[in-house]
Amino acid sequence: MVIAKKYVLAKHFEGEPKVSDLAIVDEELPVLKEEEYLIQAEFLSVDPYMRVYTQRYPVGITMIGRQIGKIIASKNKDYPVGKRVVANVGWRTHTIIDPNSKEHFGQPPYVLPDFGTLPASLGLGVLGRPGNTAYFGLVEICQPKAGETLVVSGAAGAVGSHVGQIGKILGLRVIGIAGSDAKCKWLKEELGFDHAINYKTQDITAALEKAAPHKVDCYFDNVGGEISNIVMNQMNNFGRVSVCGSISSYNAQSDALPKCSVVQKMVVTLQLRIEGFIVSRWDHRLMEGIEQNYQWVKEEKLKYRETVTEGFENTFEAFAGMLQGKNSGKAIVKV
Amino acid sequence: MVIAKKYVLAKHFEGEPKVSDLAIVDEELPVLKEEEYLIQAEFLSVDPYMRVYTQRYPVGITMIGRQIGKIIASKNKDYPVGKRVVANVGWRTHTIIDPNSKEHFGQPPYVLPDFGTLPASLGLGVLGRPGNTAYFGLVEICQPKAGETLVVSGAAGAVGSHVGQIGKILGLRVIGIAGSDAKCKWLKEELGFDHAINYKTQDITAALEKAAPHKVDCYFDNVGGEISNIVMNQMNNFGRVSVCGSISSYNAQSDALPKCSVVQKMVVTLQLRIEGFIVSRWDHRLMEGIEQNYQWVKEEKLKYRETVTEGFENTFEAFAGMLQGKNSGKAIVKV
Repeated sequence: MVIAKKYVLAKHFEGEPKVSDLAIVDEELPVLKEEEYLIQAEFLSVDPYMRVYTQRYPVGITMIGRQIGKIIASKNKDYPVGKRVVANVGWRTHTIIDPNSKEHFGQPPYVLPDFGTLPASLGLGVLGRPGNTAYFGLVEICQPKAGETLVVSGAAGAVGSHVGQIGKILGLRVIGIAGSDAKCKWLKEELGFDHAINYKTQDITAALEKAAPHKVDCYFDNVGGEISNIVMNQMNNFGRVSVCGSISSYNAQSDALPKCSVVQKMVVTLQLRIEGFIVSRWDHRLMEGIEQNYQWVKEEKLKYRETVTEGFENTFEAFAGMLQGKNSGKAIVKV
Repeated sequence: MVIAKKYVLAKHFEGEPKVSDLAIVDEELPVLKEEEYLIQAEFLSVDPYMRVYTQRYPVGITMIGRQIGKIIASKNKDYPVGKRVVANVGWRTHTIIDPNSKEHFGQPPYVLPDFGTLPASLGLGVLGRPGNTAYFGLVEICQPKAGETLVVSGAAGAVGSHVGQIGKILGLRVIGIAGSDAKCKWLKEELGFDHAINYKTQDITAALEKAAPHKVDCYFDNVGGEISNIVMNQMNNFGRVSVCGSISSYNAQSDALPKCSVVQKMVVTLQLRIEGFIVSRWDHRLMEGIEQNYQWVKEEKLKYRETVTEGFENTFEAFAGMLQGKNSGKAIVKV
């Protein structure tokens, strides 16, 4: 008999998530039915979107999120023991998966592709849906053209750091906005960003005017709020904004969102196009994105960083730290 | 010798425009050169965008805006005396036009098409660029499908009242938001809107929940600000927002815009697409829009209302009244 450990939502988050909002409980798993297989978690992903989406579900749910698990028992020949699977099953150590289930939040589990000598954990980051978030979110929504100027907010995060590098691969002038000098240094010196602005210490308006003398054509937005207003105010006519996240307002209740300046005036006068997206809209092209990113990683055009927290019991700390911006690159838990 | 009267900008607007911000002055016109022609204003247009765009130009400019003028002298056989012209030459009684000039804010003057027995003034409204604003702004940006729900803010204005009627022609459920019971009655009883909400007296959130039980797919936004947040919060996934204006923030200085709730969180979670536009982007299809609207007017599917102010010297009052929402339909000055 297998006993899974899992995090359940004990209380909806209010403001910054608290450790007491989640509880670790045991769950006795039944025996495998035909077609099912059992995975043991190796890596858990912690991502900003979790802060928001848990609010949609009732207290008592398993805390949401993707993981990489190794198949340790199977009654399905397509999912043999030893293979790894990327599955959106939440924060849990052991999970029985029915491949025909409609669960998993519309993201069916898939066998992790072979990444050669690269770490498997990249399947939760640069070579998984976060990587596809960067790739499709930039290419499809911003439709950037070589020579244009791209601004990325939340630039030192998993998605932001990836977006900026794709921008460089595509021939754009790339400016990142991040929250520490160390992050800015990393973006410029290791990832090849043309400029990086520390929003905590610099006057963003003035710094951006200097960094983007031809103004901004594409803006990949992870943060929302007043930083986004400042960037959009410096866009060229017909600028495109890809809204991937709004981390600046994730800790607020929906009925008490932070206030910032009205956006519509500049949206009209600059004829901006702003589009929000969730990566699953491109799930029919899942492998296309993963393969493109894998190619760039192999060619050393695309670098990645992981902030790895060890231990299932430290998953909450990894999550809370990521929301506070303590990570560089992808925040991961090694179970 | 012809003496033109014109309004010049004496002072940039701050808050609500004041009569002292403009001055009426005389201008002695030179003799016509070859290719030029002289028009005498018959109708002037006053529109919300003028509040914003004057801020971009120096004090001393002629107050901006389109007019319909009759050709009263001509040295150009393509523009014979007696024809009417739609020209973006500002608030002035007499104007010499050089058809090859690059002026006119990128909107070259054109001979007013023959509207049969309809009033010529419609060329500044339902059968002119405001009509095209409604037509292209709804059809091209919102891409509505029959059966969907459309919300229009500023619904009793020239553009809003037109947009809602196109919505009905295209088979949409149409909800208007306007600022008086009389306007709401007009929208429902005369223009065929399914619902109208008085934002000054009703709880918009509750009224919209009731009027749009299947939520909102398309939003045509003339006002911006918190009303727009309320509407966008009730959109379906992949909702489309066409931002035509932001009249709620036009009287504010750019560095002191009103604050409202952060939009990016709902933009992401609902995967909304928000696009601002200026009608001149479709100037290559100018006649297509005018002809479509003319067809609908002739078929009595599209009704219009004009609020006409008499007298060139009352143009400021017409403009200020329109900004305060005193008009229904298109605000026009009969010179």
